[in-house]
Amino acid sequence: MKYYIGVDIGATNIKIGLLDANFKILRKKKLYTPTFSNKEDLIEALVENITLFKKSSKCKIKGVGIGLPGLVNPEKGLVYRLVNISGWNNVYLKKILESRIGLPVFLDNDVNVMTLAEVRCGCARGAKNVVCITLGTGVGGGIVIEGKLYRGATFSAGEIGHIPLNEEGPLCNCGGKGCLERYVGNKYIVAGAVDKIKKAPLPTKIPDLVNNDLTKLTPEILSKACRKGDLMAKEIWQNIARHIGICLAGVVNLLNPEMIVIGGGVAEAGEILFKTIEKTVKERALDLPARTVKIVAAKLKENSGLIGAAVLAKEGLNLD
Amino acid sequence: MKYYIGVDIGATNIKIGLLDANFKILRKKKLYTPTFSNKEDLIEALVENITLFKKSSKCKIKGVGIGLPGLVNPEKGLVYRLVNISGWNNVYLKKILESRIGLPVFLDNDVNVMTLAEVRCGCARGAKNVVCITLGTGVGGGIVIEGKLYRGATFSAGEIGHIPLNEEGPLCNCGGKGCLERYVGNKYIVAGAVDKIKKAPLPTKIPDLVNNDLTKLTPEILSKACRKGDLMAKEIWQNIARHIGICLAGVVNLLNPEMIVIGGGVAEAGEILFKTIEKTVKERALDLPARTVKIVAAKLKENSGLIGAAVLAKEGLNLD
Repeated sequence: MKYYIGVDIGATNIKIGLLDANFKILRKKKLYTPTFSNKEDLIEALVENITLFKKSSKCKIKGVGIGLPGLVNPEKGLVYRLVNISGWNNVYLKKILESRIGLPVFLDNDVNVMTLAEVRCGCARGAKNVVCITLGTGVGGGIVIEGKLYRGATFSAGEIGHIPLNEEGPLCNCGGKGCLERYVGNKYIVAGAVDKIKKAPLPTKIPDLVNNDLTKLTPEILSKACRKGDLMAKEIWQNIARHIGICLAGVVNLLNPEMIVIGGGVAEAGEILFKTIEKTVKERALDLPARTVKIVAAKLKENSGLIGAAVLAKEGLNLD
Repeated sequence: MKYYIGVDIGATNIKIGLLDANFKILRKKKLYTPTFSNKEDLIEALVENITLFKKSSKCKIKGVGIGLPGLVNPEKGLVYRLVNISGWNNVYLKKILESRIGLPVFLDNDVNVMTLAEVRCGCARGAKNVVCITLGTGVGGGIVIEGKLYRGATFSAGEIGHIPLNEEGPLCNCGGKGCLERYVGNKYIVAGAVDKIKKAPLPTKIPDLVNNDLTKLTPEILSKACRKGDLMAKEIWQNIARHIGICLAGVVNLLNPEMIVIGGGVAEAGEILFKTIEKTVKERALDLPARTVKIVAAKLKENSGLIGAAVLAKEGLNLD
């Protein structure tokens, strides 16, 4: 049996896992990202922990895959920059790590890694043409075409969050206007909800859930309120889902995928979100691709980063 | 040398050509589509003309490629339906023609065929990730990923004309709202221009070009006015280009293509159209993919259908 190390780097946590060739997680370690004040310390911690895994496991580890929250050039093994982790500018991470740990290393951005995980081991297993969307602070996306990750001309493909929904919509921090993320990124969901609650057109118990301190509102609390049957929370989620559905109608018309996978924290809102997204896509997209596409929730949740990183390593090695 | 027959079926004309393996057109015949009152007559004319080409040429013809204006299943050789040519419902055209003419036949929709032509022999030669857009009565698109035509799960990928630009924009005849085609399809360009002229905020000589009969206005006349320096025509084209640019900003963010090819009658407006599209994409799309993408005019014009159909046949045979 062959084994792989998967690394999932996020702005909050770094997860390191040992996986077998079926991508079962055998061991797992979690580090708290803000512990590392600079990139050298973070790289040192990676080297140390990967080396420990390597030494202490009796099995033959073939390679390391790493998912990173930022812009990555997988061909060069180069990290251009990371989002919410400072000090990373044009770091040849692949080369640095390979020389230190003596194993082949493969990099990609976190959404591509999550997409790989869902397509090889998750809800989209076996599907050939898939679009993944992750809903969180940012809105990201990954694209699989004919069974292969599609990265684009400069490895930045998949930015679903920056498809414009309104030509003269609100300014997005990408410089565009009316981008999907500007409506359904975490902070915009919360800001929209606070605004709605203050205007109070509907009775709501949302303020009770944050002890009347709306600065503590999160999408998770809005989900909780929705599950409890709060009408305003329901309306808020339907509105979020409608934006996502309209954006996906465009994606469905353009790419005619067989499956769309939706993951990330916001996707936890569950049934109300998915039902409205599906309804909107059916209403807005062309008949044939709208009837064909399956819209499903990501399956692998918090382990998708580790699994996808191991898949990246395994498939990277097979390509070599 | 190997030879191919290319067929380009449109609602106005049917073109049939004999091409060599470098896709040079050696012979060409043009039929007027409305001559054929039903699909049987049209098929009969195809059989007759292809057979004539076959008999009269001394060279060895390897196969026939056909581009059709509608929804086609290239794997089954099945035409689901055609736009603006009635009577075509679920016609197994490949099988019918192969049994009559004794040559392998390959089908695809006209925009995919045009895309193939530009990527193999036109302005996008050698490019691996390309999006083509055709501007005319409808707005269509073709996608090439890693050098191969991408058709989607049910062969309907590429419908750029039905990407929504405004969530509550005007109703499109596809059932969606605010689709690109609803702003830049021929009849909407003309309707918008007539409206603008009637309100007359700018001096214009457009009415003179149609003897004051605005029902005769076409995008071609608007292009002509623009080339003559008419300020209103210029503003109209800039507005059209802005819609296209905003849509393409989303496509650039999603697909990060190396090249976007723009063809079709409307693209003849030329420099003013392309300049504004480029400017809008740079303003609205993410920096890296916006800087990377080349936006170019289709090169092959009226022969792209014949050339692409021959490419389709040649590549279809190589795959067999």
